[in-house]
Amino acid sequence: MKNGLFITFEGVDGCGKSTQLELVAEFLSKNYEVIKTKEPGAKGLGEKLREILLNYDGEIAPRCESFLFLADRAQHISQIVKPAVNSGKIVLCDRHTDSTVAYQGYGRNINLDEINYLNNLATEGMKPDLTLVFDVDIKTSMERVGKNKDRMESGGVEFFERVRNGYLEIAKHDSKRVKLIDSTKSIDEVFKEVLSYITPLL
Amino acid sequence: MKNGLFITFEGVDGCGKSTQLELVAEFLSKNYEVIKTKEPGAKGLGEKLREILLNYDGEIAPRCESFLFLADRAQHISQIVKPAVNSGKIVLCDRHTDSTVAYQGYGRNINLDEINYLNNLATEGMKPDLTLVFDVDIKTSMERVGKNKDRMESGGVEFFERVRNGYLEIAKHDSKRVKLIDSTKSIDEVFKEVLSYITPLL
Repeated sequence: MKNGLFITFEGVDGCGKSTQLELVAEFLSKNYEVIKTKEPGAKGLGEKLREILLNYDGEIAPRCESFLFLADRAQHISQIVKPAVNSGKIVLCDRHTDSTVAYQGYGRNINLDEINYLNNLATEGMKPDLTLVFDVDIKTSMERVGKNKDRMESGGVEFFERVRNGYLEIAKHDSKRVKLIDSTKSIDEVFKEVLSYITPLL
Repeated sequence: MKNGLFITFEGVDGCGKSTQLELVAEFLSKNYEVIKTKEPGAKGLGEKLREILLNYDGEIAPRCESFLFLADRAQHISQIVKPAVNSGKIVLCDRHTDSTVAYQGYGRNINLDEINYLNNLATEGMKPDLTLVFDVDIKTSMERVGKNKDRMESGGVEFFERVRNGYLEIAKHDSKRVKLIDSTKSIDEVFKEVLSYITPLL
């Protein structure tokens, strides 16, 4: 590879994306320089913002929440992702722009054109080379998450149905970048499918 | 008054706006319910964001900073300003949208149309009934600020010249809402002028 790669892992909570990210990191790091990161809350300033987003005990206005995610993203892209990709590394990122489209847009009914405009500002137009959407039904996702629910995970079943539907729409409309993976299968089966999308890019 | 009032106090650091805000609050609170507030960093979530904006010791990407101000503003308008004004109170706010136009737009050369679009999202279209811009030359402002410089105040003379010019442009282009006050005059003289703009609205 001349340049690095930017791969994002997306899906509702409990979809298995973080597990798969770890497996991919372990696999690729034998031959490549790999950075594992996440939104919201990569190291540095992002951690402070993640702390607010997940654990603030007052009411956060929807528009405020949206801007906090964007602030986190802008910092993350500028300070971590872009420098790493430009120096030939593979960046594996747990959640990115599609989370905002799915959660804020489809989940909370914020205008999609607006979200795309704002995402584009935050990323300075940088797009993932590949996005993996791990799809599970909400019943399975809820069972996996269990009782470890933080702020983002306490939104209720209907909310998550809208979010899941959002991801399905994203995958449908941007099928070149976004690959939809049935994540109710076993970890090994899912991992094989994940690799089938990544290896052609190496 | 049927509804309350939303009055913003603007200008470069050291312009005397906070002093005047205190004097106005003292004067008006004899007859009205007055709320003193500020951006960034009104009470609650705003305080956490202000702490980050002013004191984070790493590099903050310009776009990230811009989104943090917007997040703070969205929360502030939604949770504090709008409910207070709707219940008939007078809200006196130290810095608001015009600070972003002056500091980020004119100071840091971020596109003004974009800033206006983002400000409009953050405020849900709410505008101040009156904005007072306290104008001083940068030499005077620097002397007043002295050595108590935080992150926002350590940007250098040229930066502050651009910011001051931004405020002058804002006052020129929106002269109905925005009143420009020569803040090199004595505190008493400035206060008299301030009241001359506020009392017709009561």
